Amino acid sequence: MKVAFIGLGNMGLPMALNLLRAGYSVTGFDLVQSQIDAFVGAGGLPEKSAALAVIDADIVISMLPASRLVESLYLGDAGILAHANPRALLIDCSTISPKVAQDVAKAAKAKGFAMIDAPVSGGTAGAQAATLTFMVGGEARDLERALPLLEKMGKNIFHAGGNGSGQTVKVCNNMLLGIQMLGTSEALRLGIANGMDPKILSDIMTKSSGRNWALELYNPCPNVMENVPSSKNYAGGFGVDLMLKDLGLAVENAQDLNASTPLGELAHQLYELHSKAGNGALDFSSVINLTKVE
Amino acid sequence: MKVAFIGLGNMGLPMALNLLRAGYSVTGFDLVQSQIDAFVGAGGLPEKSAALAVIDADIVISMLPASRLVESLYLGDAGILAHANPRALLIDCSTISPKVAQDVAKAAKAKGFAMIDAPVSGGTAGAQAATLTFMVGGEARDLERALPLLEKMGKNIFHAGGNGSGQTVKVCNNMLLGIQMLGTSEALRLGIANGMDPKILSDIMTKSSGRNWALELYNPCPNVMENVPSSKNYAGGFGVDLMLKDLGLAVENAQDLNASTPLGELAHQLYELHSKAGNGALDFSSVINLTKVE
Amino acid sequence: MKVAFIGLGNMGLPMALNLLRAGYSVTGFDLVQSQIDAFVGAGGLPEKSAALAVIDADIVISMLPASRLVESLYLGDAGILAHANPRALLIDCSTISPKVAQDVAKAAKAKGFAMIDAPVSGGTAGAQAATLTFMVGGEARDLERALPLLEKMGKNIFHAGGNGSGQTVKVCNNMLLGIQMLGTSEALRLGIANGMDPKILSDIMTKSSGRNWALELYNPCPNVMENVPSSKNYAGGFGVDLMLKDLGLAVENAQDLNASTPLGELAHQLYELHSKAGNGALDFSSVINLTKVE
Amino acid sequence: MKVAFIGLGNMGLPMALNLLRAGYSVTGFDLVQSQIDAFVGAGGLPEKSAALAVIDADIVISMLPASRLVESLYLGDAGILAHANPRALLIDCSTISPKVAQDVAKAAKAKGFAMIDAPVSGGTAGAQAATLTFMVGGEARDLERALPLLEKMGKNIFHAGGNGSGQTVKVCNNMLLGIQMLGTSEALRLGIANGMDPKILSDIMTKSSGRNWALELYNPCPNVMENVPSSKNYAGGFGVDLMLKDLGLAVENAQDLNASTPLGELAHQLYELHSKAGNGALDFSSVINLTKVE
Repeated sequence: MKVAFIGLGNMGLPMALNLLRAGYSVTGFDLVQSQIDAFVGAGGLPEKSAALAVIDADIVISMLPASRLVESLYLGDAGILAHANPRALLIDCSTISPKVAQDVAKAAKAKGFAMIDAPVSGGTAGAQAATLTFMVGGEARDLERALPLLEKMGKNIFHAGGNGSGQTVKVCNNMLLGIQMLGTSEALRLGIANGMDPKILSDIMTKSSGRNWALELYNPCPNVMENVPSSKNYAGGFGVDLMLKDLGLAVENAQDLNASTPLGELAHQLYELHSKAGNGALDFSSVINLTKVE
Repeated sequence: MKVAFIGLGNMGLPMALNLLRAGYSVTGFDLVQSQIDAFVGAGGLPEKSAALAVIDADIVISMLPASRLVESLYLGDAGILAHANPRALLIDCSTISPKVAQDVAKAAKAKGFAMIDAPVSGGTAGAQAATLTFMVGGEARDLERALPLLEKMGKNIFHAGGNGSGQTVKVCNNMLLGIQMLGTSEALRLGIANGMDPKILSDIMTKSSGRNWALELYNPCPNVMENVPSSKNYAGGFGVDLMLKDLGLAVENAQDLNASTPLGELAHQLYELHSKAGNGALDFSSVINLTKVE
Repeated sequence: MKVAFIGLGNMGLPMALNLLRAGYSVTGFDLVQSQIDAFVGAGGLPEKSAALAVIDADIVISMLPASRLVESLYLGDAGILAHANPRALLIDCSTISPKVAQDVAKAAKAKGFAMIDAPVSGGTAGAQAATLTFMVGGEARDLERALPLLEKMGKNIFHAGGNGSGQTVKVCNNMLLGIQMLGTSEALRLGIANGMDPKILSDIMTKSSGRNWALELYNPCPNVMENVPSSKNYAGGFGVDLMLKDLGLAVENAQDLNASTPLGELAHQLYELHSKAGNGALDFSSVINLTKVE
Repeated sequence: MKVAFIGLGNMGLPMALNLLRAGYSVTGFDLVQSQIDAFVGAGGLPEKSAALAVIDADIVISMLPASRLVESLYLGDAGILAHANPRALLIDCSTISPKVAQDVAKAAKAKGFAMIDAPVSGGTAGAQAATLTFMVGGEARDLERALPLLEKMGKNIFHAGGNGSGQTVKVCNNMLLGIQMLGTSEALRLGIANGMDPKILSDIMTKSSGRNWALELYNPCPNVMENVPSSKNYAGGFGVDLMLKDLGLAVENAQDLNASTPLGELAHQLYELHSKAGNGALDFSSVINLTKVE
């Protein structure tokens, strides 16, 4: 079985390497030579364009950073739908707008392709350790066909529903995460302003109705937990600008569908202020410093 | 040991009844005759005023609905500090401003009293079933003295720190809960607008970084879970107006301390709009209908 | 000189009638027969498609309700750029995204057309009375060519800058207006809650630093002013859903450009809540009732 | 006629000096010696306490920075109500909570005093130039008695209604101003992000429905206007922290009265973030830099 992997960036490269490690033959394409070099060094086969890479692939995987790029990769004249074999299964792992995911899948199906959207969470660490979570939209039989490969790259694989619903779950989950991280930060800061020990406050809220993933596993307050970004000067983890991108997708999606997301939109604005203040590359839990009491 | 219980309302009455059931001698006072009747029917001893009720009590428990009332109950001329025996232990279970809790405790200590603040969560159902959670502020030795009684009324007892910190934890936790319920509602509504099944979306987010107490145990979307208010037309549970009161305490507390709580303040406004639209008596998870897509 | 007018809706029809009244020969197209009938009744020449209407026009004017429709009217196979004479001047009066306006103008210029964007304010009353305000983006010489016609339809004509800047001014102005109407409503309601007479409060603020167009000429509080929608049960005027559309354009534009508009986004959410509560057709000053004290 | 002036700070001192210049005999008190020295240098009579200063005054004027201080100045054992002659007219020029203003006036009247609240706008420049605006709450006959003095210190004198309504107007007006300055900033920044000249955009919006005091007379964008703080590195003018204080009063007042002020609360949060970022002493129009596109 021949696999084509388009987009060998910070996420795509370690994902492709996991497939190579599992014995797959993988042909890859990226615009950045150093990424291709690393891929080739691990046994990957380079190609000069996406069109050439997909031409005789059984499975095509893409991992790109923006809706616009996915559209042009799949729908453009030099793109996948024009050059891949319609018997190929197409798997887009990019995080993009649910609407674009639906549009691209529709175009693919019109040409006879099977296609799923399979955005991931888990970051570069998860990509390297093959512990990503995949949120999959598409038909069950297409997911089944993809499963052996997804299992080489990730640990949890959720089937969300029809095409685009992988993206929908990602957008909804990350908007909620962004809100919770801010809410948790506000609660901890308010406690600290009252003279509370943030560790004790975190412990009690974790056992109460204030419990959430951020509070419990990713506490934004330095030195409450070990091995989280807040205890390492907010290095590593999931960057402010990545959260900002996902909140942007949520706001855009809500606008398209006339859905109300007042906290989501305010969160979007606050991460944006935080990013503009020069913190875009820090972990997103650093947003606690946007709301701190001096 | 003689216990005095001031404030036999929807919360105070079942709490006092649990003490009576456990064999304590309890003298009570409330302004509403029907509440006193129920208390007396269960073996309680009525008194004509708070001052008379506390006069020879070893332990005084109070459960009132507002900071102002607690101030006047403790500090007024006809109040507890003026009439109780300074050897008595004072336990205020009301949910009030951390600042007022600190002020009252300070005044009590100046007169030689031991005092703790011990606000609860768990609602009237928890009060009846003796499964309340107590968040306690005050000295450890005072909490130890209170413990046998608290254990008759509740299940989880957390020591948060010095005086006022029980209130601080309550305020922080409930602000975070109010934010999370709104955030969860927005995420579920956005998913539904995209055509997602809210049950599947909830399941996946519960296993992901969007996880929180509201999503997992108190889902605001009808028919995702059984036995939660959203599946019973938002009857029962924790009322919108109670959440609004707690968010009001959070906003006031943040103002006093110059702490930033942008999501907390917006949540406060949104629950207020929801309440003014006539939903104050519904469970707070009904706020999902404030943000729904028609 | 031959004029083609595409889009004879609530705004387009009275604008076209003013041109007919001024003696211009106008060929028109719309999808709704009753609108065409009214146009023909006033001396307009009907055509069966936009392509046919523009084929020999010297000046083409369009007035459509959405970015998407403008794109397809100009760029589609059956559209204006494909069928009009490149010597024609193109005037788009629709309120759309600045980005789409720029894109369409660029495509038009690439084919040799002169084009300006000229969105209007003033509503249907202004369209009928020929008192519209035009905010024009494009080259000065193209505006000069358009001027004789614009003056037949409006009173104030502002040159904002290059292509798209007419739309930019419209989006910025209406976002600010939406914010001010809400801010004015909050201030008046707060005064009323304090027992103030809203008329006295409005008078003093109008002479102070709280002064703004909404407060001064379009007071949202009933019976402070005569002849404004608030004194006529919020009938007529500028609808909630039109304000919502303009705020949607602002939010989308801000997203595209990574600009921060926290009050703009919150205003967007609040008008949306107001619309979903069934008030979409009322004048936008009715938003004062979203924030009222019961 | 003898005048007592309590509070000779940045505002109170120049106000008192204007009364001295007009020939009044003024006895003053302040806690800061250098302020008293300047007062004495201009012919003022110093006293060692507020009680001594007011003891035989016909008119007492106070100018303090916080509600709490006004309460204790008037109601305390060493305060005005205990030591002034009940025939004296009391004029509080401080900006404080409407509720405290009402409470103090009620206590004053119960002791036979006439009292008005008369907060000002116009800043230290207005205080020096005697061009302040007074917003007066209280009875018309009491205002009449105060008028000769107020006219020596200010230019515009508005009678808002009963006691406390001067404060209400101040709070409502400044909340609206704070919102408009932010809204204007967002609109200008959005225009700039689209490539617009902010001067042209300001000119057009000033002639349109986006018009407001901030846009027209106090433009927050550098170099659009001369002689405003934005063109002088945001020096002088009305400080961020003063706006923050007034927004705090508005939020507190709205909470007390259960009034909804969503934009007012978000504005409060945004000025607070701006202040915490180190900009508290700059003019409040510098808030445009909170929302800027990099």
